[in-house]
Amino acid sequence: MTQQIRIGLFGTGRIGQVHAMSLATLDEATLSWVCDPFIEGAKRTAAEYGGRVSADPEEVFASGEVDAVIVASPTATHVGLVEMAIDSNVPVLCEKPIDLDIARVDALRAKAAESDVPIALGFNKRFDRHFVELKRRVAAGEIGALEQLVIISRDPGEPPASYLAESGGIFRDMTIHDLDLARYFIPDIVEVSARGANVFSENVRQADDFDSAVVTLRGANDELVTIVNSRHAAYGYDQRVEAFGSTGLLHVGNKNDTLVRHWSARAVEAIGPYQNFFLERYAEAYRLEVAEFLRAVRGLPSRSPGFEDGRAALILADAAGMSARTGAAVAVDLAS
Amino acid sequence: MTQQIRIGLFGTGRIGQVHAMSLATLDEATLSWVCDPFIEGAKRTAAEYGGRVSADPEEVFASGEVDAVIVASPTATHVGLVEMAIDSNVPVLCEKPIDLDIARVDALRAKAAESDVPIALGFNKRFDRHFVELKRRVAAGEIGALEQLVIISRDPGEPPASYLAESGGIFRDMTIHDLDLARYFIPDIVEVSARGANVFSENVRQADDFDSAVVTLRGANDELVTIVNSRHAAYGYDQRVEAFGSTGLLHVGNKNDTLVRHWSARAVEAIGPYQNFFLERYAEAYRLEVAEFLRAVRGLPSRSPGFEDGRAALILADAAGMSARTGAAVAVDLAS
Amino acid sequence: MTQQIRIGLFGTGRIGQVHAMSLATLDEATLSWVCDPFIEGAKRTAAEYGGRVSADPEEVFASGEVDAVIVASPTATHVGLVEMAIDSNVPVLCEKPIDLDIARVDALRAKAAESDVPIALGFNKRFDRHFVELKRRVAAGEIGALEQLVIISRDPGEPPASYLAESGGIFRDMTIHDLDLARYFIPDIVEVSARGANVFSENVRQADDFDSAVVTLRGANDELVTIVNSRHAAYGYDQRVEAFGSTGLLHVGNKNDTLVRHWSARAVEAIGPYQNFFLERYAEAYRLEVAEFLRAVRGLPSRSPGFEDGRAALILADAAGMSARTGAAVAVDLAS
Amino acid sequence: MTQQIRIGLFGTGRIGQVHAMSLATLDEATLSWVCDPFIEGAKRTAAEYGGRVSADPEEVFASGEVDAVIVASPTATHVGLVEMAIDSNVPVLCEKPIDLDIARVDALRAKAAESDVPIALGFNKRFDRHFVELKRRVAAGEIGALEQLVIISRDPGEPPASYLAESGGIFRDMTIHDLDLARYFIPDIVEVSARGANVFSENVRQADDFDSAVVTLRGANDELVTIVNSRHAAYGYDQRVEAFGSTGLLHVGNKNDTLVRHWSARAVEAIGPYQNFFLERYAEAYRLEVAEFLRAVRGLPSRSPGFEDGRAALILADAAGMSARTGAAVAVDLAS
Repeated sequence: MTQQIRIGLFGTGRIGQVHAMSLATLDEATLSWVCDPFIEGAKRTAAEYGGRVSADPEEVFASGEVDAVIVASPTATHVGLVEMAIDSNVPVLCEKPIDLDIARVDALRAKAAESDVPIALGFNKRFDRHFVELKRRVAAGEIGALEQLVIISRDPGEPPASYLAESGGIFRDMTIHDLDLARYFIPDIVEVSARGANVFSENVRQADDFDSAVVTLRGANDELVTIVNSRHAAYGYDQRVEAFGSTGLLHVGNKNDTLVRHWSARAVEAIGPYQNFFLERYAEAYRLEVAEFLRAVRGLPSRSPGFEDGRAALILADAAGMSARTGAAVAVDLAS
Repeated sequence: MTQQIRIGLFGTGRIGQVHAMSLATLDEATLSWVCDPFIEGAKRTAAEYGGRVSADPEEVFASGEVDAVIVASPTATHVGLVEMAIDSNVPVLCEKPIDLDIARVDALRAKAAESDVPIALGFNKRFDRHFVELKRRVAAGEIGALEQLVIISRDPGEPPASYLAESGGIFRDMTIHDLDLARYFIPDIVEVSARGANVFSENVRQADDFDSAVVTLRGANDELVTIVNSRHAAYGYDQRVEAFGSTGLLHVGNKNDTLVRHWSARAVEAIGPYQNFFLERYAEAYRLEVAEFLRAVRGLPSRSPGFEDGRAALILADAAGMSARTGAAVAVDLAS
Repeated sequence: MTQQIRIGLFGTGRIGQVHAMSLATLDEATLSWVCDPFIEGAKRTAAEYGGRVSADPEEVFASGEVDAVIVASPTATHVGLVEMAIDSNVPVLCEKPIDLDIARVDALRAKAAESDVPIALGFNKRFDRHFVELKRRVAAGEIGALEQLVIISRDPGEPPASYLAESGGIFRDMTIHDLDLARYFIPDIVEVSARGANVFSENVRQADDFDSAVVTLRGANDELVTIVNSRHAAYGYDQRVEAFGSTGLLHVGNKNDTLVRHWSARAVEAIGPYQNFFLERYAEAYRLEVAEFLRAVRGLPSRSPGFEDGRAALILADAAGMSARTGAAVAVDLAS
Repeated sequence: MTQQIRIGLFGTGRIGQVHAMSLATLDEATLSWVCDPFIEGAKRTAAEYGGRVSADPEEVFASGEVDAVIVASPTATHVGLVEMAIDSNVPVLCEKPIDLDIARVDALRAKAAESDVPIALGFNKRFDRHFVELKRRVAAGEIGALEQLVIISRDPGEPPASYLAESGGIFRDMTIHDLDLARYFIPDIVEVSARGANVFSENVRQADDFDSAVVTLRGANDELVTIVNSRHAAYGYDQRVEAFGSTGLLHVGNKNDTLVRHWSARAVEAIGPYQNFFLERYAEAYRLEVAEFLRAVRGLPSRSPGFEDGRAALILADAAGMSARTGAAVAVDLAS
């Protein structure tokens, strides 16, 4: 086997742990540095998955011991770390969103475009093999021309109040995944309409955010995309995609851990609730996301979404936010 | 419209009522006589569906006012009434079984064969449009050569003790429907094996009968048929058929009254229990059974099962009973 | 039985035929007059279902032989016929929409409100027993508070060009059924957003109409309703409703004529395409719609939608049309 | 971590490879010896998964470098290798069947019983988490008393002629898995009935074997078990289990790799064929089977099936073979 890719990991929260776990299953890479200003977190992660520990990103880049980095730290640090990676000529996989402020993203855009350092964005849904298979079959013409896309995406429960305050709102935090998923099928989105609502969470209302939302996108070929979101779902994580075309329909339903169904005097054909949340539903996708990034690190063709995809998703999320406030559809031009 | 066919109905129990109801929906026929020694039953039925009333079958046949008869009276009277119908040159639709005693059936066999009076047997499952469609698609070659047939058939609850005593046992009373259904797909059955069991009903055990049974049939082309029966099912009437062939499988599942499914924290995709019992599940089939018989009465080609089908089902049921007692497979020759 | 209700039918096109058929199955009513300026149509319908024939509505009302009327004539005649029914003190079941022009509807509104003549609107989906069951279970609290409603409704194929020209556009012709269905669950709608698209039909584009649409409604309690429409669907008539609430979800899927599923080397668990179109899918609902109207005619409590429901649906359809043109959400006040 | 368990592997055919792969994913064990008289196979496996190579089992046991062994060599060698393991005081996981000849199994039985060396049998289906969950829920009383078990088990395609000749016949080669699975739910089987058939394979007929079979078992509490087998299935590996009880039913359906379903003008709700065969369908179960064996090696409580289970399955398979030949049910006493 060729030499292992040495990875520096920034951030050791929930998603940082996921990436560390993924790396542990991939022979071609090894965790060389774990970096977190909360040094205890870094130490615990390094103890379990290996690597040296630091609270200082500069130390990591300066060490010369990272062939690539994964940015799983708080959103506000993303732009700075991606820029350091570019400057250090180190490939980077950055969690979404690049930033909550499109101005800061745009400020980095030219440098990202000019650099040939691979920059991958952490849109995990693009790596779910069911969605990949769905896209393959759409591309293969199984449903003719794609005309409508319906994404129903509901989290099992709302995030803690502390998280809500910094999340950037439902569109930039939750919907952004579905906006990128829409672009996985229809890259050129030209218009965004959105309505938000507050139906169940006082916490969300206090955070001046919506707990429910419906977004309509229009593609350049007049495709219509519908995204239905809720911050809670009593029956588990609800993740469905329906692609409707001129000659048929393809649908990805929810995933269940068990094949056991139950018949009783009360109900029949019943199956247990769905997988709880994204760590379970997209466990494999997170692993494939890192594996695909490693291909880019090796200079191989890679289908990882990149900086422009991260920027596009943020633009759509911002447009959704604006539309939800004003009631007016917002035209967007992702290419300009 | 041509003149209505005048029907004489023998027996006004549950199944007699079903046939009277079916006739009421069929413009081409009318109920002209209702005959039951329990004269109050006859009167009630006639009051609702029309017709003259009698306690005496001979009066009905002698009236000259019946173009066809339906025999839905107790099993012991079937042979006598069918014989009277033949002698009177009146087409007859007879409920299954023809008799509990194959000797009595055989005694009538020659006369039935020599007569050209239409004799139809009340095997309602042959008229269920889902099973008809299944057979059409098997015959159309959708699964290649038919190799295996799996029939799962469970009643919602055991019959009352009084009925059990006269039922002739599970094979001649309940399994007989599935034996005929098997012959709908594979007419030439050459061997019967059966195992019976007593797992839940003390009443059934007292009646020296089985509450559960499994029957294996062999067709002339070495097809294997599996019939699984139970006298109860907590979740409703369970009626499934699976045809397995060299290039695929066709399956008829259970029928549900509602399209509403429920998702909750406890279970997902749950739907209400199945239709309660045969009167609901086969309501349409009973109507089509009578309609098909009326075609025969009019001299049109008819696919109603006939006397030989009734005899064959009884032979198979008897063979199942013998096999269940002795533990040995029983060879049968339905043609001889 | 009490005396039969004598029905006058206006219009003998496709939907007029459906109502005539429904009446033929209902013992309590009889077709007394069939009225159509296309007198051959009236004659054919009367020949099959009974009744006297006229080309002149005034003759029908003047005859004194109608206890109630059904208006299934072209939309432009609805307001006039409903007004004649009110003036004649004759209960009326009117097909949707009341008119394509809300001003004409509003002009009739006060008279309709002041009269105690029953006025029922032909929103057939409210009578589908699956949707009725869905509503019953939502009302019974099975999913807690209703938060989101997702209606996917796709016709099998676009209407002929001649029809398109007079249809009033997708929102007033097709979506209007789903708008009313939304109000069946959430009567008080306060806001409408809509996007239309042209993805497949040159005919529809020529008619200056949309072939696809997505509508978002907001209820008074901040419920969000999503309606996804297309004028074609390769796999048959697509009619689904999903009610999402605080403690669960209830879903009505598509209806299939057969229970037969197919397994092959290419695909498994496949079932035949859905029922072709509304005449098949809602056959029973059309019958129940008329039956419910007859209850109102008899002075019994009736759950038929009324004039205000017809007006509300048209207001919502108009608001959808305006939103689709301007890109802005439209506030509506159905009560004023 | 404690020291790794050193495993000696006998046999490097298909199933030997599976076990080597499983070991590679289990941190607690390592492959120390790979033994196969076909030394090239041993070398290839050791090259990929590690371990020393030998053609001679005695060398392996004598090395003192095996803490446990896995027997995946041809059936005829099983008894000898298990005996060597017992004599060497080395825990052994032996593939099914122990032998094709019950006399040879019985000859080893006393020694196996007297020894406290863990002996596990390779009945992989007991480790499928869906069947485990099914059993857990049956045991938890979700369907009341277990009354019937229906196992439908069809291989995708018949084995090569060379394999057929040595397979011991369908009952000892294929059905044996389902016989053991039946005993997983109902350990005390008292009677076996079986019918075999030849419907599609000339090769199988030449080998004097059946290509299709139906087996009925009776449990000590009069439970009835139905096993339906075929050596081919056009739509993939068919593995279903249905447990029917006094208050309900639990069912494990087939497993599909994809969540994508397809709707077209020809068929709707269609999904791709099932996972091809046991290596795919039971991949995880094979891993858990080895993991559970390792628990026994460590002296921990283990739910691995043992020698008596292997013997019982063979007795049932032999009884099925005899019943299929004679047509008579065969009483069995697994305890004696």
